[in-house]
Amino acid sequence: MKRNLYLNMQDRETALKNYLESLENVKPGRENIPVTESPGRLTAEAVFARWSSPSYNSCAMDGIAVISSHTKGASENSPLLLREGEDYLEADTGDRILPPYDAVIMAEDLIETEEGYQIIAPTHPFAHVRAVGEDIVAGEMVLPSCHEIRAVDVSVLLAAGVGRIDVVRKPVVGIIPTGDEMISFEEASGGADGPEDGRIVETNSRMFEGLVRENGGEARRYGIVPDSPELLEQALLRAADECDMVIINAGSSAGRDDYAVHVIRSIGEVLTHGVDIKPGKPVILGKVKERPVIGLPGYPVSAWLTFMEFAVPVMNRFLLRGEKQGERVRAKLTKTVMSGLKYEEYVRVKLGVVDGEMIAAPLSRGAGASMSLVKADGFCVIPKNSEGVMAHGEVEVRLLEKPEQIEKTLVVIGSHDIILDVLNDMMTEEHSGMRLSSTHVGSMSGLIALKRRETHLAPSHLLCGEDGSYNEAVIRQMFPGENIVLIKGVRRRQGFIVKKGNPLNIRSLADITPEVRYINRQKGAGTRVLFDYLLKKEGIPGTAVCGYENEAATHMSVAVAVKKDNADVGMGIYSCARALDLDFIDVAFEEYDFVTRAEYLDLPLVQEFLRVLKSPQFLRKLEELGGYTAEEIGEIRYVIT
Amino acid sequence: MKRNLYLNMQDRETALKNYLESLENVKPGRENIPVTESPGRLTAEAVFARWSSPSYNSCAMDGIAVISSHTKGASENSPLLLREGEDYLEADTGDRILPPYDAVIMAEDLIETEEGYQIIAPTHPFAHVRAVGEDIVAGEMVLPSCHEIRAVDVSVLLAAGVGRIDVVRKPVVGIIPTGDEMISFEEASGGADGPEDGRIVETNSRMFEGLVRENGGEARRYGIVPDSPELLEQALLRAADECDMVIINAGSSAGRDDYAVHVIRSIGEVLTHGVDIKPGKPVILGKVKERPVIGLPGYPVSAWLTFMEFAVPVMNRFLLRGEKQGERVRAKLTKTVMSGLKYEEYVRVKLGVVDGEMIAAPLSRGAGASMSLVKADGFCVIPKNSEGVMAHGEVEVRLLEKPEQIEKTLVVIGSHDIILDVLNDMMTEEHSGMRLSSTHVGSMSGLIALKRRETHLAPSHLLCGEDGSYNEAVIRQMFPGENIVLIKGVRRRQGFIVKKGNPLNIRSLADITPEVRYINRQKGAGTRVLFDYLLKKEGIPGTAVCGYENEAATHMSVAVAVKKDNADVGMGIYSCARALDLDFIDVAFEEYDFVTRAEYLDLPLVQEFLRVLKSPQFLRKLEELGGYTAEEIGEIRYVIT
Repeated sequence: MKRNLYLNMQDRETALKNYLESLENVKPGRENIPVTESPGRLTAEAVFARWSSPSYNSCAMDGIAVISSHTKGASENSPLLLREGEDYLEADTGDRILPPYDAVIMAEDLIETEEGYQIIAPTHPFAHVRAVGEDIVAGEMVLPSCHEIRAVDVSVLLAAGVGRIDVVRKPVVGIIPTGDEMISFEEASGGADGPEDGRIVETNSRMFEGLVRENGGEARRYGIVPDSPELLEQALLRAADECDMVIINAGSSAGRDDYAVHVIRSIGEVLTHGVDIKPGKPVILGKVKERPVIGLPGYPVSAWLTFMEFAVPVMNRFLLRGEKQGERVRAKLTKTVMSGLKYEEYVRVKLGVVDGEMIAAPLSRGAGASMSLVKADGFCVIPKNSEGVMAHGEVEVRLLEKPEQIEKTLVVIGSHDIILDVLNDMMTEEHSGMRLSSTHVGSMSGLIALKRRETHLAPSHLLCGEDGSYNEAVIRQMFPGENIVLIKGVRRRQGFIVKKGNPLNIRSLADITPEVRYINRQKGAGTRVLFDYLLKKEGIPGTAVCGYENEAATHMSVAVAVKKDNADVGMGIYSCARALDLDFIDVAFEEYDFVTRAEYLDLPLVQEFLRVLKSPQFLRKLEELGGYTAEEIGEIRYVIT
Repeated sequence: MKRNLYLNMQDRETALKNYLESLENVKPGRENIPVTESPGRLTAEAVFARWSSPSYNSCAMDGIAVISSHTKGASENSPLLLREGEDYLEADTGDRILPPYDAVIMAEDLIETEEGYQIIAPTHPFAHVRAVGEDIVAGEMVLPSCHEIRAVDVSVLLAAGVGRIDVVRKPVVGIIPTGDEMISFEEASGGADGPEDGRIVETNSRMFEGLVRENGGEARRYGIVPDSPELLEQALLRAADECDMVIINAGSSAGRDDYAVHVIRSIGEVLTHGVDIKPGKPVILGKVKERPVIGLPGYPVSAWLTFMEFAVPVMNRFLLRGEKQGERVRAKLTKTVMSGLKYEEYVRVKLGVVDGEMIAAPLSRGAGASMSLVKADGFCVIPKNSEGVMAHGEVEVRLLEKPEQIEKTLVVIGSHDIILDVLNDMMTEEHSGMRLSSTHVGSMSGLIALKRRETHLAPSHLLCGEDGSYNEAVIRQMFPGENIVLIKGVRRRQGFIVKKGNPLNIRSLADITPEVRYINRQKGAGTRVLFDYLLKKEGIPGTAVCGYENEAATHMSVAVAVKKDNADVGMGIYSCARALDLDFIDVAFEEYDFVTRAEYLDLPLVQEFLRVLKSPQFLRKLEELGGYTAEEIGEIRYVIT
């Protein structure tokens, strides 16, 4: 086995600072474009008015143009009569005011008579006249350097006689995807189940393309380069000629086929290989032909994060832009995040405001969890030399989502069901601007979050051992003296998910022999509580079940493990078995409810949730999904604690 | 004179609410586009994964694939030897894990020996294996409806097998400019001084075009329609056929040539003509062929504001979007804003943070002051039935600028000089992200703002009557016991600006006879103090000067008034006379300094200002402008108070 060693594992800040300092030749370019095409671009230099605006003395109101000296002496007691042609001319907004006329009286201040208009107050020179240059003076600076042009600037520039301007040229960012196992989406998309095993759809280059555009650059994607140093060198030399900077993805790691660092060093210079951030360690910062060349890791989350941390600052160099800090908020973590001492760790979080406090729920931390990026509202950075942050501790979060959207978020923490996605979809589409943000931690952890006022709703299906009832007994135990409410949800079919045709002929718990591979749910999940209840009833210890330690976080993950033969059986809800065309053995018909505080019921977010929950559209959707009944849906039960 | 009466002067909210309710047929359309072209667009419906990702069990780390059952019993005391082909295979990140291999051990945890690897701990099934569907499960909802697609979503959609999606169609917004006096920029741009007198360059349609795009629509601009009901009707019928909604601009007012309301009523329906906002009163909300048709006023500020308040909500109807509130902050007003009881008034403000408090400096309020829109960081709304807000009172400001930019703003309130524009330009271009925001209220008002901690710097050139010295005496009087500092600025030539060739042969104050038209500066301006000082010395009362009441707010405005023959003479600085190629008679060589508090000197914003002020580039710029000397520039003088 021959692997690269990381040249020098540097800390992020030092690595970036040294790199930027080494890029002396990286300077913004400029181009001259029509003002009408300039919105979103940055001015390359200050822009000065060529013309004054208005360019002549003009009437500012609808009314009459008068000679101000003719209006002297007018008063309520002795109104003055003005005659057309002698004392005044009719004038509308925008009309020229020419000598001897020098002022305007508004239509509203005129008394119409047969001989002309009467006025009851004198006026003075330039009254209601827009004097030449009142808005813009020729020679005046209209926009400074480095100003991002908006629609409103366009009209002012044109009014000032400026038809073309110098803007900062967009840097051309070359993107070179690499890897023998990669295939393009177009090649892969023939298959109904995705690419053939062992092949990966190359999607990062499309993300980079979008990020380059979002950050003001022009993207140039190259074809996928196989794992060959010669071919990578060719591609890199070409891209360095054609682009202002180049991204290589991936091959930046220390694997046997990771050639990027060698190739860059052989035809250029490597300043950094490896930085102490997680995810994102295998970053290469180098130069080829004096162009910045950056090698980024392949996992989607690492790729995104390192692009933002290293490629964007280099792009900003081409764009005359200072480093953007991005908006930050303080938030309370809903669960403990452990972190290694050696790395600065970036944790994606979902955000919402509960009881006036910003709440951050950590998302899946794997570098490959690209869905966590889609769902993230921001991320917090756990510094090096910290072991992590305890649950309910405060963290600083860099925002990815708009603060106004975060305030319109119904926070839902607890048990998972695919109906949560459906409810979110229905809330977002109703013009309300509201959304539902759910984090799946299991029923019990959801109730703890509600206890700590860290969630609006806690979806729960906790079987209370003694009487076979759901939820109420647990709530009474956990919330003594508090006003807790159960919003009745659905009854759902819970059972064993098995392969199509049930090849192992599983009919009950007794059929899950040690040869049968089980896939379990995480601790605290109601489904796991149910499975443990069944095991206990039969007197079977967990250790006797093959795969008891193998955990999945959602019903869908259980179903896909069975579908793809990572397990033979798992416990989950009927709708997920059906969604993946699997067989299902009924075990229980359980109550999946939403627990909340009585005081939250009046919140617009909760009201909107209730409206959607009880809507005919949602009931129709439940039928489509299958495995649900909804006799009591939306009913409010005050729990006597 | 025949003028329209406003049909019904409605309040903004009611007018908009009724209008939106009447637009039942306005529904979002959808179109199917490639995912790679979808960033910035909104999903028309929820998007579900077609494929799982990863699509096979894959190696999550560089290392070896092992059979987990073969690793049992390994410990530090008794390391276990694994043999290639029997117990393990080499595996890098992304490689397939095929039975019987079911787990991965990281390279870091291996001890290399000649026979194979030693391990000191056992592993378990699926350790460091990315199980199929770990990131995305086929059938799972990837994005809800109404989600604005970002670069990161693109790669996830592709990984989930989704190559095309339904997005909300961009509404096509027709824009019809009208008016006999209007000419296009292209027609006008031949003239060096702008369009010929009486003609106005039509720029609003270009602003609307930009605003339509910024708000997610597709703009279709039509040619300028003259003031003819027949031609307007033709244009409107065509646009209603070709577009989803139509903007007419202007002709929405009550002037003699304002036909829009009649035309819309004759071929459609008018719901509202006139709303109680200022600026922006003459708004028409109507329908033609069931398409929304909106008439907007012609003044740039009114046009912008009414577009945002009426056209954007209608566009949002087509875009499946809820009403966006926009971000708001509380701020302290630097000066009193009076407002009529009959209107809701929108006041543009510049913002900055001084001593931890958000400060709002009101900008010029005229509907024609389009530069005030360019300069505005936000606007506050003075409600109906309010007489206004007193200086130092708190207002709510709707933001137009990013909060992070506002925090990086050096607030400068006081006397005007064009070097302030130059200093701002130099601060913005230096990658610092900082800017200088100046409000021109005259020296004295600037010092009052500093006194109240509403500005970082107060540029001042106050002549202290008795000894002919500048600034220090006034500061001692105003700031007893406070630590005030004078940052020495420039000495500048102040004098009479007259026409090229000085046709009236003005050499001193004595030549400004009652026949000579003077243009004055506003009260509190240092230049006016100087003029009054000269008048007093000669024993001339202000009333004896023709045009003494005629006020301009900046040196450039004085110069343009002389240039364009609205006045014969005014007092101002040499650089402005020179910029407009006018003649100049020296009167004084005055000291233009920056007053600040000692405690502000260490602020990064003030430090950056000092750096720019003392830079060779700025000194070079002063030479180019002319009329300045800078012997003491940047020197710090502690004023003993």
